[in-house]
Amino acid sequence: MTHNPTLQKEAQTMLPQNVLEYGREDNAIRETAAYAARRAEEIGAENVFNFSIGNPNVPAPAIVTESLMHIIQTVPPEVLHAYTPAPGMAQVRRAVADDLNRRFGTDYTANDLYLTAGASAALSIACRATLVAGDEVIIFAPYFPEYAVFAEVCGARSVILKCREEDFQIDLAAFEQAVTKKTKLVIVNSPSNPSGSIFSGETIDAMADILRKKEAEFGHAIYILADEPYRELVYDDDVTVPFIPNHYADTIYCYSYSKTLSLPGERMGYLLVPPKAADSRALYAAICGASRVIGNVNNPSLFQYLLQECVGATADLTVYKTNRDLLCAALTEYGFKMAKPDGAFYLFVKTPEPDDLAFCARARQYELMLVPGSAFGYPGYVRISYCVDTDTIRRSLPAFRALAEAYRSAEGTL
Amino acid sequence: MTHNPTLQKEAQTMLPQNVLEYGREDNAIRETAAYAARRAEEIGAENVFNFSIGNPNVPAPAIVTESLMHIIQTVPPEVLHAYTPAPGMAQVRRAVADDLNRRFGTDYTANDLYLTAGASAALSIACRATLVAGDEVIIFAPYFPEYAVFAEVCGARSVILKCREEDFQIDLAAFEQAVTKKTKLVIVNSPSNPSGSIFSGETIDAMADILRKKEAEFGHAIYILADEPYRELVYDDDVTVPFIPNHYADTIYCYSYSKTLSLPGERMGYLLVPPKAADSRALYAAICGASRVIGNVNNPSLFQYLLQECVGATADLTVYKTNRDLLCAALTEYGFKMAKPDGAFYLFVKTPEPDDLAFCARARQYELMLVPGSAFGYPGYVRISYCVDTDTIRRSLPAFRALAEAYRSAEGTL
Repeated sequence: MTHNPTLQKEAQTMLPQNVLEYGREDNAIRETAAYAARRAEEIGAENVFNFSIGNPNVPAPAIVTESLMHIIQTVPPEVLHAYTPAPGMAQVRRAVADDLNRRFGTDYTANDLYLTAGASAALSIACRATLVAGDEVIIFAPYFPEYAVFAEVCGARSVILKCREEDFQIDLAAFEQAVTKKTKLVIVNSPSNPSGSIFSGETIDAMADILRKKEAEFGHAIYILADEPYRELVYDDDVTVPFIPNHYADTIYCYSYSKTLSLPGERMGYLLVPPKAADSRALYAAICGASRVIGNVNNPSLFQYLLQECVGATADLTVYKTNRDLLCAALTEYGFKMAKPDGAFYLFVKTPEPDDLAFCARARQYELMLVPGSAFGYPGYVRISYCVDTDTIRRSLPAFRALAEAYRSAEGTL
Repeated sequence: MTHNPTLQKEAQTMLPQNVLEYGREDNAIRETAAYAARRAEEIGAENVFNFSIGNPNVPAPAIVTESLMHIIQTVPPEVLHAYTPAPGMAQVRRAVADDLNRRFGTDYTANDLYLTAGASAALSIACRATLVAGDEVIIFAPYFPEYAVFAEVCGARSVILKCREEDFQIDLAAFEQAVTKKTKLVIVNSPSNPSGSIFSGETIDAMADILRKKEAEFGHAIYILADEPYRELVYDDDVTVPFIPNHYADTIYCYSYSKTLSLPGERMGYLLVPPKAADSRALYAAICGASRVIGNVNNPSLFQYLLQECVGATADLTVYKTNRDLLCAALTEYGFKMAKPDGAFYLFVKTPEPDDLAFCARARQYELMLVPGSAFGYPGYVRISYCVDTDTIRRSLPAFRALAEAYRSAEGTL
């Protein structure tokens, strides 16, 4: 075996440059988390306030652990760990359909569902199944940065629309203008990461009216790609999350159990193609094809068995409301400005200086690990993930207060 | 909500046609398995001889079940089910590297490994990380049909080279001719699905010599993409499977625990980028990017913990040798022609009529469910998956004998 160093430079330029860039790109979320981990080693974890990652801190509900044990003890291993059909076992998809039908008055069947490795894989598969080069995908900022990656790797163009600053709702006039004959997908993430905002039923209806008008005008379907991993993380009784397929027929629906069941590492989610969506069977076939070309064979079988047992269960999510209320009240008291989030587990706070990266660097001096809004296409803001234990939040408050005061004393106002 | 049926036709033509086709394509393996399942319902499973699928029939080793129980009982759920780094937890990758180093005298580290959802995802990621439109990928027939799918969806062209019929080894002269300046990958699957053949160390060395010469001639790297899920399924003491990175530096290595640990449904595998491969760090970054664009967040965390406990273990694979010897001897006695396979759990048998699809249809009359060689780019043969219990094989022998006699009496010879 010989190693030929003269090939080094040449080989690199032969690799697909977009994929190489995506692999090298510094992800602000992971970078902040990595810094927090290093800092914890230096000064002790109890002195670092890590608000960087959306990793649920509440344990999975007891039924998850009990069901896993029960399944492993009762299903023979050569059955339990066998291949399943690529979309998932029919009885598991049926259980998911039944749960949706019970909650939303729909009549889905197993044939409308495709199990995926979380919402992330669902989104990438949905993009691959629908987009061709030259298509446009509308994305509302602030947004989960992978949306643009999934669209652009299919040759599509991301059209970023800023949500209104006062309430992080959609600017409908701007939306109507942005829909062109090239638009194929509109990605809607409600409750939103990172703003925590929920689009109201009225907003979704108004969007649906615009889209139906544009579909008729352009003569082809425009799909809403609904990404709803935070659906169950809503904290006030008077707030409901519209189920988009009930407002707009041409919806492709992505869901993840990461937050609901506190199982982010296990990658359980699904795609739903409602039968009323335009050309739904071809769309489902394209999803099968898109899943095939990425090398997906089936969602891990043990977790399919688990899902059948646990569909409809949730972790104890009440701590997130406690955290939100505590952090919102304190930060508001210190002079920070934000729209109180209705859901998810993020605060999206206006930075007291326009440069959110500079603000995050300054926050690190107080051991506060925050992610700049720029990472979500919305500079001048910062994301604070409050999926941490409440005691960490309590102990972090003096740091937030000191940070606010540093800005106030330097600039006379926050 | 209104459903606009006039959009139906238009929408379908807007979907990416290649992906749609891949989703609709009739996969001969799955079609045969589905027919076998229907037939089992009609006449009873004990009367159907299903040799269609490579689903290991031996149970996972006891250490798998024990470790799963132990992990679930001892690791707190909010730790066990949390996100992990995208390539996998460092200690798990280290355990895999240590196992490789122990067996092959190498010095890999965690940084050379990337955990994937089985070898299938590893292959798709490796293609996405290396191929650009216009590249060529050499594939040896008979071959796992997804190879061509993974290559072609990246815009590359599959160059199919038939293995020699007498021993399913590589025709080196034809190989040398097939390597052009567009060749970027050569996929090597040894032991092979479906032929069960193993490429000898001499063959790999000869291929390596050719490739190094071509690399020098064309001035860029040509990678071998080694796909070795069947590495441990070898039945004779005098047969060894060459570890290709030790023969050729520019190798990307794909592995799966599906067969070794009898866990095909759980999707555990990895990519190895040896540090001596041309431009290995850029290649690793491109693999990170390729994994990101398909929406891979991390391999399921529970199975990462499991892998750390079970690396190096194997299921009891001795039944496959029993099955191979029984089936080879009987089929040879009945007049069928085949090269005795050295590994994997497939017989690749010459069909007594040139049309392998017609032969498979005729075999179904005897309730023998076989997959035509055409599905693997090698007509005139049939794949018999002998990963079934030995009793099924024994009970199937009269059917094979009757099938052979039907051909003999019709045509005077088998």
